[in-house]
Amino acid sequence: MILQVSSLLADARVNDVREQLEARGVRTMLFRGGEHSFIRCIGDPTVCRDIARAHSIAFTGSEEATPLVARVTADHRTVVRVGAQAATVIGGPTCAVIAGPCAVEGRDVLLETARGVRAGGAGLLRGGAFKPRSSPYTFQGMGDAGLDLLEEARRETGLPIVTEVMDPRQVDRVAEVADVLQVGARNMQNYPLLDELGRLPRPVLLKRGLAATVAEWLFAAERILAAGNPNVILCERGIRTYETVTRNTLDVGAVAAVRHMTHLPVIVDPSHAAGRRELVIPLALAAVAAGADGLIVEVHPRPAEALSDGQQSLDLLQFSELMRSVSAVAQAVGRSVWRQDHLAQEVAA
Amino acid sequence: MILQVSSLLADARVNDVREQLEARGVRTMLFRGGEHSFIRCIGDPTVCRDIARAHSIAFTGSEEATPLVARVTADHRTVVRVGAQAATVIGGPTCAVIAGPCAVEGRDVLLETARGVRAGGAGLLRGGAFKPRSSPYTFQGMGDAGLDLLEEARRETGLPIVTEVMDPRQVDRVAEVADVLQVGARNMQNYPLLDELGRLPRPVLLKRGLAATVAEWLFAAERILAAGNPNVILCERGIRTYETVTRNTLDVGAVAAVRHMTHLPVIVDPSHAAGRRELVIPLALAAVAAGADGLIVEVHPRPAEALSDGQQSLDLLQFSELMRSVSAVAQAVGRSVWRQDHLAQEVAA
Amino acid sequence: MILQVSSLLADARVNDVREQLEARGVRTMLFRGGEHSFIRCIGDPTVCRDIARAHSIAFTGSEEATPLVARVTADHRTVVRVGAQAATVIGGPTCAVIAGPCAVEGRDVLLETARGVRAGGAGLLRGGAFKPRSSPYTFQGMGDAGLDLLEEARRETGLPIVTEVMDPRQVDRVAEVADVLQVGARNMQNYPLLDELGRLPRPVLLKRGLAATVAEWLFAAERILAAGNPNVILCERGIRTYETVTRNTLDVGAVAAVRHMTHLPVIVDPSHAAGRRELVIPLALAAVAAGADGLIVEVHPRPAEALSDGQQSLDLLQFSELMRSVSAVAQAVGRSVWRQDHLAQEVAA
Amino acid sequence: MILQVSSLLADARVNDVREQLEARGVRTMLFRGGEHSFIRCIGDPTVCRDIARAHSIAFTGSEEATPLVARVTADHRTVVRVGAQAATVIGGPTCAVIAGPCAVEGRDVLLETARGVRAGGAGLLRGGAFKPRSSPYTFQGMGDAGLDLLEEARRETGLPIVTEVMDPRQVDRVAEVADVLQVGARNMQNYPLLDELGRLPRPVLLKRGLAATVAEWLFAAERILAAGNPNVILCERGIRTYETVTRNTLDVGAVAAVRHMTHLPVIVDPSHAAGRRELVIPLALAAVAAGADGLIVEVHPRPAEALSDGQQSLDLLQFSELMRSVSAVAQAVGRSVWRQDHLAQEVAA
Repeated sequence: MILQVSSLLADARVNDVREQLEARGVRTMLFRGGEHSFIRCIGDPTVCRDIARAHSIAFTGSEEATPLVARVTADHRTVVRVGAQAATVIGGPTCAVIAGPCAVEGRDVLLETARGVRAGGAGLLRGGAFKPRSSPYTFQGMGDAGLDLLEEARRETGLPIVTEVMDPRQVDRVAEVADVLQVGARNMQNYPLLDELGRLPRPVLLKRGLAATVAEWLFAAERILAAGNPNVILCERGIRTYETVTRNTLDVGAVAAVRHMTHLPVIVDPSHAAGRRELVIPLALAAVAAGADGLIVEVHPRPAEALSDGQQSLDLLQFSELMRSVSAVAQAVGRSVWRQDHLAQEVAA
Repeated sequence: MILQVSSLLADARVNDVREQLEARGVRTMLFRGGEHSFIRCIGDPTVCRDIARAHSIAFTGSEEATPLVARVTADHRTVVRVGAQAATVIGGPTCAVIAGPCAVEGRDVLLETARGVRAGGAGLLRGGAFKPRSSPYTFQGMGDAGLDLLEEARRETGLPIVTEVMDPRQVDRVAEVADVLQVGARNMQNYPLLDELGRLPRPVLLKRGLAATVAEWLFAAERILAAGNPNVILCERGIRTYETVTRNTLDVGAVAAVRHMTHLPVIVDPSHAAGRRELVIPLALAAVAAGADGLIVEVHPRPAEALSDGQQSLDLLQFSELMRSVSAVAQAVGRSVWRQDHLAQEVAA
Repeated sequence: MILQVSSLLADARVNDVREQLEARGVRTMLFRGGEHSFIRCIGDPTVCRDIARAHSIAFTGSEEATPLVARVTADHRTVVRVGAQAATVIGGPTCAVIAGPCAVEGRDVLLETARGVRAGGAGLLRGGAFKPRSSPYTFQGMGDAGLDLLEEARRETGLPIVTEVMDPRQVDRVAEVADVLQVGARNMQNYPLLDELGRLPRPVLLKRGLAATVAEWLFAAERILAAGNPNVILCERGIRTYETVTRNTLDVGAVAAVRHMTHLPVIVDPSHAAGRRELVIPLALAAVAAGADGLIVEVHPRPAEALSDGQQSLDLLQFSELMRSVSAVAQAVGRSVWRQDHLAQEVAA
Repeated sequence: MILQVSSLLADARVNDVREQLEARGVRTMLFRGGEHSFIRCIGDPTVCRDIARAHSIAFTGSEEATPLVARVTADHRTVVRVGAQAATVIGGPTCAVIAGPCAVEGRDVLLETARGVRAGGAGLLRGGAFKPRSSPYTFQGMGDAGLDLLEEARRETGLPIVTEVMDPRQVDRVAEVADVLQVGARNMQNYPLLDELGRLPRPVLLKRGLAATVAEWLFAAERILAAGNPNVILCERGIRTYETVTRNTLDVGAVAAVRHMTHLPVIVDPSHAAGRRELVIPLALAAVAAGADGLIVEVHPRPAEALSDGQQSLDLLQFSELMRSVSAVAQAVGRSVWRQDHLAQEVAA
């Protein structure tokens, strides 16, 4: 059963309702949306109905069989809140842009990139400390030291951190630093990892597998939700096809379809889809036009010097150009870009 | 060798230059662009250079090896002119929207659709008289009678006609009616058909094969150009992948890549890519955002009654909605939508 | 309705039955099998039943809805007879091997190849006179002159000729020479071509499209059958996937599946699937082990000199090795290889 | 550098050589083959050369750059020895057949299956205790209890156990029971898991990812080898394509290609490729004909009652039929089937 509560309802009231439900044996999960939020209830429908009525809250169906990821009403959209004050949002009326280097390579270059993308309008900072690489002989990331640098970059710029975790044994360590824990395409069906991530409240960015169907992708999200973590952000990054003119084939149709199927936000990685710098902006624009809730983009101050993925990284000038075009297209489809620097100004004001 | 002539140069002057070239044994082909047009010359480079200099026209390289489809300078963009007065344009700063039913099914419904899409802002009318269908037992189109109805629809609405031709023996007959001859995905590598189409000056809409690479698609276009017809419009319609949530996987990356590789205009068919009505608009917007020069969209006044592809056809109201959103996104990327009704008003004014 | 007649029944008797059926308005099509042959009847079931009973022939169902390609009983297997005396068979207990060059390149090399593959045990000779090539600038085949050379090769070796036809306007000309008319992968859904081929009695080798589903492939065969020609041989030649270690991905699963779905014989082209000489033999063996009714293999006396597909052509020594291994595997699965030279000896004896 | 030692050389002598190399700072890895075994040396080439010469052992190149998986000479083939006495072999002149249920479901049914497949000629027993399932709501395996049952089945039948491990934290526990540790398709690029498996000497069965290229598959194997475990068996199980007539598309071309590229044994899983019982045997035969070193097949005494993959499981009668046909095809390609019951008889004799 799904209880639909106005987003205007104070958090305290919502917690109250959930506590009453849990006290009577109903397991609950909260999905925060724009206009409405939704409390998913697993348990005795009669109890749910009674409590809902007592609080004048709308509810739908018995729904025991509906997957947790399924969108059940037209305005059922989850907004994932990120960062210490939950001030950054992914989903809802704004588009969030996550930008930064493929891999954390060193202190100076990371800070330079972080400042650059923040000035350009990014909402969050990406950077890999642990890198899954096909060959065992290439750079595998800076590991723990990389996490420390990401922490420093956040302190300086205020940008929340998105970084990958690959090993269920490292989830707690990475979660000390990461505001969003990224699951890479190769690990979309790494169930022990998903289960660990489901036990934390920390938002998870779940990349679609290299050749995963939309159904498998949603099932992987379901797994995290079912383990108790409702804060999942889907990320389309191009699928594997016979075509080689791009690194992967960006599946904008899946983005559009997924928005009909689930309430979870879905963002797009145009960098891995394109594989070539000059195609990143057109793909980013296509994604936003198709309804994506945000982007994750590889940016490097000097792409030619990047240790990985240099050929698909934008430099800071190109990133600014991307942000300008993305803002225009976002506006054309009735949205705006969520900017960290604007938020900071509001807070300052 | 490529001669680059300002588009401001009068047609008579351009013809003059071509005649002089041809008179001295050089084969020429004219690609009309926005700011510049290009005369492709196959023959003695010294002759070309002399004539170019005599007319103060810029020229590039000896270029014998460059494919005819290749884009050779940054502003090398072909604009294909369509219709009796060549008044309708595909390519250049505007986006053209081709709309109409999958198949011509009867007089009344065709005229109703033609009027409807013109009012909604379409630039051209599509409709199949000869339909390639997988099963030999389903509706194969009205054939000749369908062509007659398309002619009537054009007379009434002024919309140029886009219709498919499948058989090299029917090219001349279809060309009596069609303003643009469409090659379907199944026939992208039907070389006898391409060769016949290359011998006419009539514009050709060349759909990408179901699982054709970008390279094969451009080779198919090259074949038409090499046979003498420079008026080719490429059309991406989704490729075949393992994913089934959409009918085909719209390859917006290929649209973006092709715009770097060729001067030919490239449009998108969001209807066959989506396969489901509710995904047509997001895919259309993604296409325009990625740089497509236009769209070809299936529209039916009552999709539930359509003899084919009803589930992916928009009704007239949805088409108007599509046109509104497409206009907004086109504007966001610095373009506008080419409308037949506006043209008519200009002509009238 | 399907009438099942023992293959022991004299041809004259079978013709008698068909004439009686046709005289009473029933359209018939004969599929010759091993133990049994099948007369497919389209028309009044009562008439069919009466005539069947009068000749003590078994019949099954009304079956109007069953596609012509569908296998309706466990021993429903069509055997296609090829050549002037219909002496060569494809389908049934033997495996036929079609061998020869990709393209006919000249008299001497064709005759050398034809003699070589006959000595090695081939059942038929392949060779392209009209070649569909992606680029308009590469060798497109010898055309008519190539057909004349194929005719000469047949006169000398007795091997029936398999050659491609691409253009509906050339079907009659190619059929003057070809014992089997090949439809290439690019033309699997070229309906005007299929319709022309359906009007002849000449056997058709129908290659699976580059990315055609099994269902589409069978529909294409259905189209030829529905037009009146029951002599279709299916040919799997590898499908397009993301994998590049082979030129195409040989779909042995489709071969096995198709043998459950249709009574038509299915052969395999290991050369185009492999794309590399050293993989041709293992793929040929896999095909026969999976149940293929034959092979079509590219052979050239000096592959390095071939004008096309040299890297995937076997030389004559490798072809002999292939025949030895194929014979062993065929025997292991209860079949034998159909050899033209053995037939000739029997005839001589 | 690679040292090539005759397989006739006593194990003690080989160990001697390795100890001398290691004592002088050279890291060594032993790949056991049929006629020859190979010692891979990473370290000072002069030291390696000196020691090799002192023992009259052939050596090739400096080879620092050659991947560990690469086949360096024509007879470079690794034979993986399995089980307590290393008595079972995978690779070399015999084909090993691994058979058993998809999942361990209970004591009685497991023992019944184990006895059945041993009687039918299987060499090893498969059975999943931990099952990776797309949906979090379906049967996920018996876990630890399943391992105990597998141990019992081995005690009774003598069949070595092949079972999957998904979590790096469970590797040691699973390795207490498993003779071969299976990495499923979803985990082919789960690097923390591969790294754990590389630290053990226990053989690893590495399934190809759902849409992994051959290169990525070999890189995954390289990762295990580079971590110190040379006992890797590759397993092709069908790849994801657009075709749906089979569950996956068995890539026999990859099997043939891989045998040219690596010395590691490669086996095939016809059950997951086919997805339908009636296609398992033809695919198994195709695999052996193409050169596979073995098979892994799902068998269940009553497939209709299986908790997972019942539609693709053979019953015991069908398994016997598979073994008969596989033996015939193996013989046709110069190999034989490795049977556990024959081994037992030899030991008894």
